[in-house]
Amino acid sequence: MQAAMAIEDGMVVGLGSGSTAALAVEALAARIAQGLRVVGIPTSEATAALARRLGVPLTSFAEHSHVDITIDGADQVERRSLTLIKGRGGALLREKIVASASDRMIVVVDETKLVARLGGATPLPVEIVAFGSQTVIARLKALGCAPTLRLKGDEIFFTDGGNLIADCAMAEIPDPAALEARLAAVTGVIETGLFIGLATEILIGRPAGVELLQR
Amino acid sequence: MQAAMAIEDGMVVGLGSGSTAALAVEALAARIAQGLRVVGIPTSEATAALARRLGVPLTSFAEHSHVDITIDGADQVERRSLTLIKGRGGALLREKIVASASDRMIVVVDETKLVARLGGATPLPVEIVAFGSQTVIARLKALGCAPTLRLKGDEIFFTDGGNLIADCAMAEIPDPAALEARLAAVTGVIETGLFIGLATEILIGRPAGVELLQR
Repeated sequence: MQAAMAIEDGMVVGLGSGSTAALAVEALAARIAQGLRVVGIPTSEATAALARRLGVPLTSFAEHSHVDITIDGADQVERRSLTLIKGRGGALLREKIVASASDRMIVVVDETKLVARLGGATPLPVEIVAFGSQTVIARLKALGCAPTLRLKGDEIFFTDGGNLIADCAMAEIPDPAALEARLAAVTGVIETGLFIGLATEILIGRPAGVELLQR
Repeated sequence: MQAAMAIEDGMVVGLGSGSTAALAVEALAARIAQGLRVVGIPTSEATAALARRLGVPLTSFAEHSHVDITIDGADQVERRSLTLIKGRGGALLREKIVASASDRMIVVVDETKLVARLGGATPLPVEIVAFGSQTVIARLKALGCAPTLRLKGDEIFFTDGGNLIADCAMAEIPDPAALEARLAAVTGVIETGLFIGLATEILIGRPAGVELLQR
């Protein structure tokens, strides 16, 4: 995978979550087997387990306050701004914390994820506190979106941090920053899946090759 | 306690946390013993335990989406606006969720808590995610406050929700709403101790009697 080629000796690497990010972890593991020396900060328990199994050395923010490059996937990418919707895998909070601490965030997607405007067919995942979630969901509705509490089979889905995800369906999002501010102001909202100003490079896999979008 | 006298038959009552709120729970329990029928939504495990011990029936947001009156304490009250700083007891997140769902929030304080401007001697508690807390604290510093991670004895303090508290010392807060928006925008910040537009009545205990401030 091309994204893993950006990683250089000595770097601290943010390891995303989900199927695309897993491919990046595998590609990174292959380079480590060839002698590359890096440490990874995982964005989910699942990614941490995968990295351990493949021999990718892990670290934490207690040891490194700064991440050189994070590689992750996305549910949607706005072409003009490189703003993302993330969170379908349920790891948006840790992914956003790691991305926020990163110099570069390389996002790997297929071309179906690329849109002129975010929203529409793709709901926005919003991580909310479990305590009083009924009242938080009522306030999300009042902001004009249609939230559905995420399930895992028949059970309520809990994030690694013990929180819930409300998948908020809404029309297209003309102004992601304004929406982010409105959602962040709701008591009980921990984080939204809007990643604004975080992605520095988008790698789009196409049959004919890889397209690069850059900020 | 006078605040408990505002509670009427059939109400859903938000039960605050901390020493002042505990007095209100005791006063409410005394009225329940005399026949008042109410249910309480506790804002902390400690308050839930106290309520159970005193025979105050408890409920949750799964049964009641709406709270009639919440009674709670505060660390600081801005006289002009009734904006509060809360969180010294570590329960600010659940307190804020319950207060946000309440028609009325009655705050009981002594007169030392009443100020012309918030901040200064009283640090602002900010609840943050444990994962990557080092990077969140660095960003709080960049916003101009001096955060200290809260300890309990020699150990890190964890909230009921498993999060951390950064106590942010800062100069006086001229514009609480602007500060709240800036802090809420920091990835990893779950909630701040600023309660804006939530308190409807402040009861100030004085040697000569109780003063009432109302919105």
